[in-house]
Amino acid sequence: MPSASLANVRVVLTRPSHPGNIGAAARAMKTMGLEDLRLVQPARFPDAAATSLASGAVDVLERARVHETLEAALADCVMSVGFTARPRDLSHPARSLRDVVPEVLAPAAQGRVALVFGNETFGLSNEELVRCSALAHIPANPVYSSLNLAAAVQVACYELSLGAHAFAIPAGPARNAATGEEIEALFAHWERAMIESGFLDPAQPKRLMERLRRLFARAGLEREEVRFLRGMLTSFQKPKPGTQSDIE
Amino acid sequence: MPSASLANVRVVLTRPSHPGNIGAAARAMKTMGLEDLRLVQPARFPDAAATSLASGAVDVLERARVHETLEAALADCVMSVGFTARPRDLSHPARSLRDVVPEVLAPAAQGRVALVFGNETFGLSNEELVRCSALAHIPANPVYSSLNLAAAVQVACYELSLGAHAFAIPAGPARNAATGEEIEALFAHWERAMIESGFLDPAQPKRLMERLRRLFARAGLEREEVRFLRGMLTSFQKPKPGTQSDIE
Repeated sequence: MPSASLANVRVVLTRPSHPGNIGAAARAMKTMGLEDLRLVQPARFPDAAATSLASGAVDVLERARVHETLEAALADCVMSVGFTARPRDLSHPARSLRDVVPEVLAPAAQGRVALVFGNETFGLSNEELVRCSALAHIPANPVYSSLNLAAAVQVACYELSLGAHAFAIPAGPARNAATGEEIEALFAHWERAMIESGFLDPAQPKRLMERLRRLFARAGLEREEVRFLRGMLTSFQKPKPGTQSDIE
Repeated sequence: MPSASLANVRVVLTRPSHPGNIGAAARAMKTMGLEDLRLVQPARFPDAAATSLASGAVDVLERARVHETLEAALADCVMSVGFTARPRDLSHPARSLRDVVPEVLAPAAQGRVALVFGNETFGLSNEELVRCSALAHIPANPVYSSLNLAAAVQVACYELSLGAHAFAIPAGPARNAATGEEIEALFAHWERAMIESGFLDPAQPKRLMERLRRLFARAGLEREEVRFLRGMLTSFQKPKPGTQSDIE
């Protein structure tokens, strides 16, 4: 379930040119648990390209509201963050997205907050930026810092979702870890097998067992794996069919 | 400049269906300082849609190499991370992307590492996943966890770039912060003006000055702003033209 804070986070796209980006932004939002999309003077909306790129997030797109001005889109927000790619000649300094996340989530526990993104080509105008309570910047390659609009929305929503601890990693298959006793028995077996094969000389052990222990400690052995490895060792310990008898 | 570690991070797309996603992935990579793109059995490549969506990252696209197998794409890699949206019945557990970043960057200081993404519809097959040294998962909404392929590449490259401290936030305009003396003179001026206007009763100050101090401490005053505010206060202190003389 999306956290209560995320439900209060709105994404505002001002003057988006490409309807495909609106749809892709809706998809990005929904994957991260955000649902409140607002559009200020979109060039084309609704549009088939938006619907197509929204994929499974068409519901977010259908509930998106269109506003004439950024002011109207922010009217009920207690905090807003404008995203900017370039430093601007403005008094509030742009900070990194990650640094801004706690400042967005704190007020979002009680009121609406907004992430504001500008036009694909021109970004946010100065008039739009001064309507935001904070500026955020996604650190990027100065040689080419132009994230696609929906990609920027994806990164921003991802950071907020992670900051809100909204979604746990899905549990993998239950691991059936081997016990210390089982692992010790495996190593004892392994050592015997290597001594019998002549690979390990007990007089000059060369830390072979230590190496094996380190390797398997990193891997983390499961019970099933211990069984499989011991079966394998047993097979190595048997005289090979047709070798000892034939050749010796 | 991208860090040396990032230059060693490869992105591998296996069996991508939509050439647009290949282009958008190239763009996502370049914005975060990555340049080494490999494609395993792309459905269509090269393709006009890929070129169009690569935007300013056509160079990354043009240098992309195509391989017949994932094995070939990973041949010179010392580490590889497979991205998966669902928990799998496999022995290595999927961990969050952010947790995996240090494990990717450490070997990337010396050798090539790969981020491996599967097909848009089916993800990575089990055969592909077991060829990866680690699995990573982008935490997402269980109700709709389907990030667009290029959006997932953007998030992954963003996390790596941030983890490598590759790009500093561009410096904003130099701030010309006011000195303590200037700020104290402003508050003294403000207090006088409020007393003169009758708003502040020195006998019952109601902590008005404390509130003002707190507000401006949060804002962080600049020298230019102090000058502007003092000019404003002076204008308030003057008798209003046409009031005192006309009415009294």
